[in-house]
Amino acid sequence: MRKEATILRPTNNGDRYELLTPTAMPKAAGFLWNEKMMIQITCRGFATAQFMQPEPAKYAHAPNIEAKTFMQPEQNYYAHHPGRFVYIKDEETDELFSAPYEPVRAPVDRFVFSAGKTDVAWTVEHLGLRVEMVMALPTADVVELWTIRVTNLSGRPRRISVVPYFPIGYMSWMNQSAEWKEDLVGVLASSVTPYQKASEYFKNKYLKDKTYFLCETKPDAWEANQQSFEGEGGLHNPSALQEPLLSNSDARYETPTAAVQYRIALKADEQREYRFLFGPAYDEAEAKSMRDKYLSKKAFVQQAAQYAEYIRKGSGCLRIETPDKELDNFVNNWLPRQVYYHGDVNRLTTDPQTRNYLQDNMGMNYIKPEVSRKAFITAVSQQEANGSMPDGILLVEGAELKYINQIPHTDHCVWLPLTLDVYLAETGDYGLLKEKVRSANGDEFTVFERFSRAMDWLIRARDERGLSYIAQGDWCDPMNMVGYKGKGVSGWLTLATAYALNLWAGVCEHEGQTDKAKFYRAGAEECNAAVNKHLWDGDWFARGITDDNVKFGIKKDPEGRIWLNPQTFAILSGAASPAQIERIIPQVDEQLHTPYGVLMFAPAFTKMREDVGRVTQKAIGSAENGAVYNHAGVFYIYSLYNLGGQEDRAYALLRQLLPGPTQSDYLQRGQLPIYIPNYYRGAWREFPRTAGRSSQLFNTGTVSWAYRCFVEGLCGLRGDANGLVIRPQLPSSWNAIKVTRLFRGATFYLDIRRGDVKDVTVKQGDKTLPQPRIDNIRAGETYKLTVLVPE
Amino acid sequence: MRKEATILRPTNNGDRYELLTPTAMPKAAGFLWNEKMMIQITCRGFATAQFMQPEPAKYAHAPNIEAKTFMQPEQNYYAHHPGRFVYIKDEETDELFSAPYEPVRAPVDRFVFSAGKTDVAWTVEHLGLRVEMVMALPTADVVELWTIRVTNLSGRPRRISVVPYFPIGYMSWMNQSAEWKEDLVGVLASSVTPYQKASEYFKNKYLKDKTYFLCETKPDAWEANQQSFEGEGGLHNPSALQEPLLSNSDARYETPTAAVQYRIALKADEQREYRFLFGPAYDEAEAKSMRDKYLSKKAFVQQAAQYAEYIRKGSGCLRIETPDKELDNFVNNWLPRQVYYHGDVNRLTTDPQTRNYLQDNMGMNYIKPEVSRKAFITAVSQQEANGSMPDGILLVEGAELKYINQIPHTDHCVWLPLTLDVYLAETGDYGLLKEKVRSANGDEFTVFERFSRAMDWLIRARDERGLSYIAQGDWCDPMNMVGYKGKGVSGWLTLATAYALNLWAGVCEHEGQTDKAKFYRAGAEECNAAVNKHLWDGDWFARGITDDNVKFGIKKDPEGRIWLNPQTFAILSGAASPAQIERIIPQVDEQLHTPYGVLMFAPAFTKMREDVGRVTQKAIGSAENGAVYNHAGVFYIYSLYNLGGQEDRAYALLRQLLPGPTQSDYLQRGQLPIYIPNYYRGAWREFPRTAGRSSQLFNTGTVSWAYRCFVEGLCGLRGDANGLVIRPQLPSSWNAIKVTRLFRGATFYLDIRRGDVKDVTVKQGDKTLPQPRIDNIRAGETYKLTVLVPE
Repeated sequence: MRKEATILRPTNNGDRYELLTPTAMPKAAGFLWNEKMMIQITCRGFATAQFMQPEPAKYAHAPNIEAKTFMQPEQNYYAHHPGRFVYIKDEETDELFSAPYEPVRAPVDRFVFSAGKTDVAWTVEHLGLRVEMVMALPTADVVELWTIRVTNLSGRPRRISVVPYFPIGYMSWMNQSAEWKEDLVGVLASSVTPYQKASEYFKNKYLKDKTYFLCETKPDAWEANQQSFEGEGGLHNPSALQEPLLSNSDARYETPTAAVQYRIALKADEQREYRFLFGPAYDEAEAKSMRDKYLSKKAFVQQAAQYAEYIRKGSGCLRIETPDKELDNFVNNWLPRQVYYHGDVNRLTTDPQTRNYLQDNMGMNYIKPEVSRKAFITAVSQQEANGSMPDGILLVEGAELKYINQIPHTDHCVWLPLTLDVYLAETGDYGLLKEKVRSANGDEFTVFERFSRAMDWLIRARDERGLSYIAQGDWCDPMNMVGYKGKGVSGWLTLATAYALNLWAGVCEHEGQTDKAKFYRAGAEECNAAVNKHLWDGDWFARGITDDNVKFGIKKDPEGRIWLNPQTFAILSGAASPAQIERIIPQVDEQLHTPYGVLMFAPAFTKMREDVGRVTQKAIGSAENGAVYNHAGVFYIYSLYNLGGQEDRAYALLRQLLPGPTQSDYLQRGQLPIYIPNYYRGAWREFPRTAGRSSQLFNTGTVSWAYRCFVEGLCGLRGDANGLVIRPQLPSSWNAIKVTRLFRGATFYLDIRRGDVKDVTVKQGDKTLPQPRIDNIRAGETYKLTVLVPE
Repeated sequence: MRKEATILRPTNNGDRYELLTPTAMPKAAGFLWNEKMMIQITCRGFATAQFMQPEPAKYAHAPNIEAKTFMQPEQNYYAHHPGRFVYIKDEETDELFSAPYEPVRAPVDRFVFSAGKTDVAWTVEHLGLRVEMVMALPTADVVELWTIRVTNLSGRPRRISVVPYFPIGYMSWMNQSAEWKEDLVGVLASSVTPYQKASEYFKNKYLKDKTYFLCETKPDAWEANQQSFEGEGGLHNPSALQEPLLSNSDARYETPTAAVQYRIALKADEQREYRFLFGPAYDEAEAKSMRDKYLSKKAFVQQAAQYAEYIRKGSGCLRIETPDKELDNFVNNWLPRQVYYHGDVNRLTTDPQTRNYLQDNMGMNYIKPEVSRKAFITAVSQQEANGSMPDGILLVEGAELKYINQIPHTDHCVWLPLTLDVYLAETGDYGLLKEKVRSANGDEFTVFERFSRAMDWLIRARDERGLSYIAQGDWCDPMNMVGYKGKGVSGWLTLATAYALNLWAGVCEHEGQTDKAKFYRAGAEECNAAVNKHLWDGDWFARGITDDNVKFGIKKDPEGRIWLNPQTFAILSGAASPAQIERIIPQVDEQLHTPYGVLMFAPAFTKMREDVGRVTQKAIGSAENGAVYNHAGVFYIYSLYNLGGQEDRAYALLRQLLPGPTQSDYLQRGQLPIYIPNYYRGAWREFPRTAGRSSQLFNTGTVSWAYRCFVEGLCGLRGDANGLVIRPQLPSSWNAIKVTRLFRGATFYLDIRRGDVKDVTVKQGDKTLPQPRIDNIRAGETYKLTVLVPE
């Protein structure tokens, strides 16, 4: 990190990031998850928490009836947004502030927001008092574990009130109330999830409709009624805090809240520590059992250790030491954590999009390949009778396809070979292909047969020109109007089909299915030829052809002239000849590169194009229109590594996946470098004020591919049927890196440096290996290798 | 109004109500509507506005993604709730306040909130300045007409900024932006209503997705970006107002807002007047045309006159002068307005519940019977092939049954004769019965035949005991679990069926269909007998019997022991003998009466009864559980007037339909006496703190029946086939009232007073009429009558 970036710093070997102001990057947040829940909490104290029962649910709500919707980018915060706060009142002077920062927003003397891998913490100092807040989660229950510590720094005795305020919000129009429970030592808010059909009652019956806020130490007063707490003072100066004690008011079909007051005297340097639980419960007994299980110092310490162990299991297969320390930190600490999150909880949905499910599990190959193996079986068990894949994979009994998964997309089959590629590379477990899988239709096929049937479907799902139908969308460019009449075709999908067929042909070859291999290679060639015939626009590939036979993503289009995905996949599929690639890359450089990554397309649309649809509907200035869509960007990077000889361009783009390292970059993106968001705002030429802004949404297929780019691309450590191939692709400015790679149970220490060699040369001890690869790998063994790459 | 009630006063003959503090009744609101929109705005400036396109839509939004839902009771307000505000900043001292009250909440020197029949207005004085705000609507467009006037009262020159702030909120995740438009002289915010299915695009294509805020006078600066306006200061002290001028910032996929700044110098006593438009538009051109049409002093004046005329058309058929001046005011000014609202816009839904649609139009008989006539035809044109009525009536092409209308209720047919009764009484138009109506099924019947078929269906929809099936609900006691298995029965519905059959038999008799009349009377007797046999519990009637044959609403039930509706309808249907009625009424008095009206049932439920369902699910403390449901209450009043000899009880209960007249009653209910809400909070014994609180929801079937109670009951002026019957039922404390009644085109002036008579005696001039009735009424004529009622 460079010197000017004084607002942000990594600590503890980078497994924490500290932000030193609440105002410069107001949406900067940390996130924690466990097997059942997720919470994103901003530096200012606003929080968004979800848990599964089995559909995503909340235990702290907005002040009004919120729509149930998919996770939104660029969350909007406002005074009454759910959050976790503590008011501190000086009882001698009546001065008031709040930690972390909201709702009082007092300018404080010291502020540290510390987003860690296993907890989120703050230190706030003001009026001679230090407030420390720590939020942690256990591994397997839905509950927040909060520690609030107050220290008297003023060198004199003090009388203060410490008032944790955890708003619960509008729970339900059907019923909501809250009251103090002596036996729980806390506020219990009750509600009934609204329903109208009698059948819904039985579905809702066991929902955790109660929210509890439990105190280890009994407070002097409490408040369960939002209105009574706030009064005419407003959240920045609640009326209840203008009195000596909170009013002990319950809520009866009024908005519930949880606030408790500790009115204490502190000697000089004295410290008080409080612990709280916040979460949902089915009934009072469950809240009580959570109290018994978790609400003690001992339990907090124990849970922290268990949670750290849980996170440690997701550390991934790669550690690097490069000249780019922030990148090292990201690759070693944060990226595998984000990959793990995706593989572990499937974005907290019961019906992940098929392509997301496969890609999230692709990342899991680097962490727990046995999870990925099961995911392939789950996915293909839901294959349609005609060989196509559904729009989403249902993960629990009774789950349904929701939101965008109700819209027909035609790309899902493509992702099978693309993601299997990593499973086979990491494990060499071709045995998976022989597993028999029965589907809901009742048909039974091996995994190999199911993949072949999916590829056959892709081959069939093309028009007379050999181009793939797009229906209402294909992956991350949701152009829903191109082919809704059933005729429009997708250039990208045709190329992705070719790429998938080629990959699958390789598997067929390995399995000795030579005829099948030939058949699929021929299919790939056909696709590539069709795209070259119909969609090559002279310097790049067009994006598609509409129902009404209008080609788009071409030079004469004033908006949406060039799209990234077709170029990427033309490189991957082999459609683009070396001469074409030489034309394409400069166009991407010129038209799509920005300081924040590669745009998905350009120029951004300023108005609706009725024959293209949804992306363009999100007209200029909106988030996704011409955004730096990292998922598209990372594929481009992957294609550059696949192509070879693009080390510098690939590294530069990889680097842009995360904010920093300059302070101005952090400020503009507004995010800590602890995850890759799904997009950064685009329209860089048109709207520089907002360009680069992070979506703050850490759900994205980007991360597994980013990790793959580091593993296979930058470090060049990819497996094949027999062992590990070594082909690093260092940027020219780097002379050496060190890498630790876990692979098939063995540990590889690689010292990679430039040397006077023509091709990558690998030494084990003093012995130079005949090929840059290690075969016959023995699990449990350690391999120390020196790798020389050409200067 | 009594003397202690100094916070509230009627003005202008009561067609305005003035509230003199923003804090005592924070949710107190006025409401305006026109043919296409509705707005409810609180004394503090928070607003809820909806317009039809054709489904209800908003042009000012919450700060997050709100659920689309039916109109909710007890709206919750919070800092960022949509509203209409103006900040006033003293440029010499930097002092700040806002009118009406939010968001600054400064204690002001003078506050008047004035809810009028045709506008809503405020006067706020602070820092030597007077701010007057007036909101009006035109009759036929969706646009708010705002006047803001600032007067310097300080006697010295002043430099101030006047900053109207009309937040627009979170418009859409798909697209939102806002910018200043020079040619509009205003902020134009744009969005795209989100959709995912391509088919939705075509549905949404012409939605008014833009919101405009237009200024007659060009401001010195503007702000279209909520975050930029608010900054770190928060809404109570926006950062933008800490600068000399607003920052002229646009919003790009950021939350739009509209604020404009007039930085002005005012001489002593000088006044400035500003006009603004706020509303939705399809495009900029539409916003421009609204500007051209409305944004001038002349247009405002013209619109005010037209709107007043529009409201005048809904003045109703009754004017009273009684010893209860506040009641007079309500009956003369406000109740017919609320009735008119219901009849005119059908609660701003495209699929009103059938029972609501019929009752709302029942009220319209007193205002525009031709509208009611059409409504009957519309309703029966949607009759099912089996004679039953659907759960909702679709009013526009493409409308769908939504929310509760998707749940099978079995009472809809009942409402046909109950509401037709008023149409025939008001108009004598039996010709309606002969109209032929073709339904969507293709069948064609006369209105008479359709009513008969509905009655036949009711007779059939009973079990072997002769009791009516309840399915998932019957009217205002939505007990959805009583009969969801298809067996449970409703005591109320059986009695309501009897009442409906009797009414219909009366019509059959009038039409000379004697056999039919006998048949339906026999059906009614059967129903009554069945209820007496199975549901008489000794002192009152039970509510029903569940699927599993459990009788409920009986003495041994600790909760939900007595329900109001079965008692009411036993009186109306004739099921209850005089002896039974003598037992019932004291039980209602004792168990159900509260200071705020009659409870729907008691005791309130504290937990779910699985065999009863939804109302009980709304457990104790929630709104509807054991509430004073005015719709149930008004039927009880109606049954008392029907019964006769209950003048005092009936009047006392009628009086309780509206808040007041004591200050403590206003405060507890929290509502102005300008409408009857659908409920007041119940659980009066259990939760006195919240009991009586108004739902603030003015959509309710109560109002047409309340009006009917005044017309037919208290004043006793009901039509029949031949003329007007006169049977006033004055409470014993009244000696005389004066009534003006419009009836079949004639005007009746009645001087009603107690006299030494045995029965009601009517004099026309000096002539005592043989019967208390006027026949052969001539339209256009004036009848001056003296009515003597027994002392």
